[in-house]
Amino acid sequence: MPSALKRLLIGRPLKTAQLAEERLDKKIALAVFSSDALSSVAYATEEILYVLVLAGTAAFSFALPVAAAIVVLLIFVVISFGQTIRAYPSGGGAYIVAKDNLGNIPGLVAGAALLVDYTLTVAVSISAGIAAITSAFPHLYPDRVLLAVAAIALIAVANLRGVRASGSILAAPAYIFICSLAAVIGVGIYKLVTHSLEPALPAAPLAASEAITVFLVLRAFAAGCTALTGVEAISNGVQAFKKPEAHNARVTLYAMGAILGSLFIGVTVLARHLQIVPVAGETVVSQIARAIFDHGFFYYLVQAATAIILILAANTSFAGFPRLASFMARDRYLPVQLINQGDRLVYSNGIILLASFSALLVIGFSGDTHRLMPLYAIGVFLGFTLSQFGMVKKWLTDKEPAWLANVLISAIGGTATALVLLVITVSKFDHGAWVILLILPLLVGMSLAIKKHYDNLRTKLTLSQELEVPVPTERVVILFVGDIHKGTVAAARYAKSLHPHLIKAIHVSFDEQDAADIREKWDRWGMDIPLIITPSPYRRVTDNLLHYIREIEHQRPQAAITVILPEYICPHWWQLLLHNQTAAWIKHELLREHVAVVSVPIQLV
Amino acid sequence: MPSALKRLLIGRPLKTAQLAEERLDKKIALAVFSSDALSSVAYATEEILYVLVLAGTAAFSFALPVAAAIVVLLIFVVISFGQTIRAYPSGGGAYIVAKDNLGNIPGLVAGAALLVDYTLTVAVSISAGIAAITSAFPHLYPDRVLLAVAAIALIAVANLRGVRASGSILAAPAYIFICSLAAVIGVGIYKLVTHSLEPALPAAPLAASEAITVFLVLRAFAAGCTALTGVEAISNGVQAFKKPEAHNARVTLYAMGAILGSLFIGVTVLARHLQIVPVAGETVVSQIARAIFDHGFFYYLVQAATAIILILAANTSFAGFPRLASFMARDRYLPVQLINQGDRLVYSNGIILLASFSALLVIGFSGDTHRLMPLYAIGVFLGFTLSQFGMVKKWLTDKEPAWLANVLISAIGGTATALVLLVITVSKFDHGAWVILLILPLLVGMSLAIKKHYDNLRTKLTLSQELEVPVPTERVVILFVGDIHKGTVAAARYAKSLHPHLIKAIHVSFDEQDAADIREKWDRWGMDIPLIITPSPYRRVTDNLLHYIREIEHQRPQAAITVILPEYICPHWWQLLLHNQTAAWIKHELLREHVAVVSVPIQLV
Repeated sequence: MPSALKRLLIGRPLKTAQLAEERLDKKIALAVFSSDALSSVAYATEEILYVLVLAGTAAFSFALPVAAAIVVLLIFVVISFGQTIRAYPSGGGAYIVAKDNLGNIPGLVAGAALLVDYTLTVAVSISAGIAAITSAFPHLYPDRVLLAVAAIALIAVANLRGVRASGSILAAPAYIFICSLAAVIGVGIYKLVTHSLEPALPAAPLAASEAITVFLVLRAFAAGCTALTGVEAISNGVQAFKKPEAHNARVTLYAMGAILGSLFIGVTVLARHLQIVPVAGETVVSQIARAIFDHGFFYYLVQAATAIILILAANTSFAGFPRLASFMARDRYLPVQLINQGDRLVYSNGIILLASFSALLVIGFSGDTHRLMPLYAIGVFLGFTLSQFGMVKKWLTDKEPAWLANVLISAIGGTATALVLLVITVSKFDHGAWVILLILPLLVGMSLAIKKHYDNLRTKLTLSQELEVPVPTERVVILFVGDIHKGTVAAARYAKSLHPHLIKAIHVSFDEQDAADIREKWDRWGMDIPLIITPSPYRRVTDNLLHYIREIEHQRPQAAITVILPEYICPHWWQLLLHNQTAAWIKHELLREHVAVVSVPIQLV
Repeated sequence: MPSALKRLLIGRPLKTAQLAEERLDKKIALAVFSSDALSSVAYATEEILYVLVLAGTAAFSFALPVAAAIVVLLIFVVISFGQTIRAYPSGGGAYIVAKDNLGNIPGLVAGAALLVDYTLTVAVSISAGIAAITSAFPHLYPDRVLLAVAAIALIAVANLRGVRASGSILAAPAYIFICSLAAVIGVGIYKLVTHSLEPALPAAPLAASEAITVFLVLRAFAAGCTALTGVEAISNGVQAFKKPEAHNARVTLYAMGAILGSLFIGVTVLARHLQIVPVAGETVVSQIARAIFDHGFFYYLVQAATAIILILAANTSFAGFPRLASFMARDRYLPVQLINQGDRLVYSNGIILLASFSALLVIGFSGDTHRLMPLYAIGVFLGFTLSQFGMVKKWLTDKEPAWLANVLISAIGGTATALVLLVITVSKFDHGAWVILLILPLLVGMSLAIKKHYDNLRTKLTLSQELEVPVPTERVVILFVGDIHKGTVAAARYAKSLHPHLIKAIHVSFDEQDAADIREKWDRWGMDIPLIITPSPYRRVTDNLLHYIREIEHQRPQAAITVILPEYICPHWWQLLLHNQTAAWIKHELLREHVAVVSVPIQLV
């Protein structure tokens, strides 16, 4: 990327010492880490009603108990993550907890599941947000994929600029969403209590297509559990908080849990008392807001805030994915580049990777939210479950004060999320959930292969007591001659400056005319370095070169062999396209064969 | 590309000495170089009728005179190219003729025009051929772009395998097309003469929407001139013929001209006497064949051969484009990589470039032939015109025997093609021809910039009498230390083996903890090489390194400075993704600053 453009998009580089300043206070962290979790309020109640409606409107009486059960589950999960943050103040969430307490494979499963889910969160939230916009402006519909990819790019750039900047950008819409939805609930309940709001005229009672069974209620519960997606983001991001990190993260987590639970229950209560039936074309939240405010300014504010927070929910993943990836890379389960912090002290490579994968998902699924949904949530609940059973193991092992209460909370939470996971997997398996069950083992296998490579490296490279380091006694220099010009002469000059014990120039010739030309020029400009010309009928330069090097190695085992390659260095990148990349190719091949290669720049400027 | 896959697709490498064997005999060359020209018989008559029909069926009486005029034009063009081949036995066509006789800019215009037209030929022919197939099998229609791209890839692979193989693949369908169309014409004329074939019942006379004007007849003439596209291919490809190249090429050219002219006139005569009116949904050739053979086997053979030759017409460009590009690259107007001959002694880079550009065109225009047509043919006639005026200039300059006749042929041909060019440009300008008038100057400008780069290079690098080559008297070695492990020690060992006058190790540190760690390890493993640790608050390794090098250069102007970089060499390509590319980046930056860099491979296998 040309550096001027990079500066414009990303901003000036920051000093490493500035790292501590780039932390989030609680108010901004709530916005950064909670958009995903909070945005689910926009659809969780609706998801419950969509399942219950299969058994007719009579089944709607189960909506509130199901929502209450989900809030109880939420409380357990939030408390459990609060304990996790205390036990793991350096952050890490499900991956670290599962790895530390249950072992590497469960840790990798949790890590892979969360990485997949972060990517899906971006694709799903952006698609849903753009769908909300294109519903309002239908003429934008044909460009929805382009708009979604542009939105992903925008969020990626905001994140590459660094956490504080992205926090400020995102704080306002998140709070507008919270306040406007709180106003809907507050005004709605006030009007209900004062009897100034009448339920919508009940439509003809819907015919039931299924009986009210325990499984149906469980499915409604599982569908509503989308409300919990994103709750784990804070425990992964403890290190982004201002000091004291663990304390601030815990307070923010509880605040988020309280807001999420209240909004969710509030929406469900209103939906129940206003006797709202889910319909295609208008969301449940929109129906509620319309019943309370009619089509006034406030109705449109709620709708706009919902659309924006859905898009910003993707931002949660842009905070979470790069951090989790960096943890896994630190353990050598992912490429180490994911640990690098860019100019603005963020994990740039993780951000770019997430943006690329989610953009590909959006393009591949043509921005269709409903085709992505079945893949979604499995990862989250797999992570929850492994994390909570990890905590059970930890409490049982450490036996700290109040360990029994802790074990109970984590065990109940873990069992509940495991059950939810089972229900989601079974009910969504045919609709694409099997893809996730295929991808996860592949990711885990890849992580193990990566780990093996790094471990192998460490074994091979670790310095040990017995290392003997004989310095070679002879210097052999081989000068590779392609064409003969000033660059070749400069390389010959450099070769001579090394004062080698043996010096040879070598030219690989494709035909006899060329061989004669080179010989003639070398006699004049070769600085008395002996030239070997070797013919190559199949035009394979490296083969001849290597063959000759092997011969010398055989003759002089005590020698350090250096191959000198003149290399074109062009002032402009496009000029690189105008040259054969022979030098780069030869160098690559020689290094693979453990020969030291000197690149002598041919000066063109 | 993994080499096993490459071997499978492309075949074993061939020796340079095998080049002469890979030539074409006349019969195969006719198929290889003529598919483009011959396939235009499938639509040229139709194009004429489509213009004339604007003035009502009465105007159809102009069809035969117009076709005859085009055949006269064809004769002049073919004779002119025949002379060109004699004058330029090494091949080169319009580009070389225009450049040699009219100057560099006309040559570049002709070259750029032909390159653009070759690319369009591939896109248009493949799209049209696939459209013929998807008309027969409508369920393939949604995959037409995929099919077109696959067809391009297939032809590219056939060409990458080498000319003889591709000739054999293509000869059969080309001859089937020629024979089946000749049979249609022969049987048709026999039946007409014996009065056993009645004209189709004339439909109600079509109302004229335009008057019969000179301009309309000229437009019909211009539209029919698509029959001439591809005629120049042989003169570009003389070098692909068996010896004597020029003679064989000329004979093949005349044979092609005779076949093309006969088929074109034959189709037009039949269309006229069968009173065929062009309609959407069925081609004129199909109507003729149906009138003669009804829906019998022979009708389907004609249709299938037409579809296949349209696709194979693209192959003409795969012979022409890489050759023309190599000529222009030899003159340094295009990147020199286009001169390289691959394993199978073909211009692999040109083939790959043409396949990529034409595939992009097909994808960009969604395989829609009609949106590409207006861009087409301008390039061909621009090339014809420049080439023929170039020959006029040459005959006038050389004054060989019979020069006056030659001048007349070339001048008349050139004037005619110039007129056609004018008519095509004016009548198609609004429909996209302006794009070509925009692209050509850009291509010419790019070629001039490339030429300037190479000229600049040559000026800078050419060795002259006065060159003084002082060999530096001092060796300074700077060892870059990232982390300390066996690889670092191996690099230190190599550094010592150079017996430098000054040796320093340098480590760029991002924080103090790291600095202390490295210092401690170096004290133990550093082989007494002095270590400099320099802090970099903005994590910019190269800046620190360069700063230090500049300092040494200043202190010791007589020294040759070598920077030693340990570099990871992994046995598998994917493992490269697991390492920071710091070494490659540092090397790139240092070479730009004219510092010699040694890569010492860290042995991992």
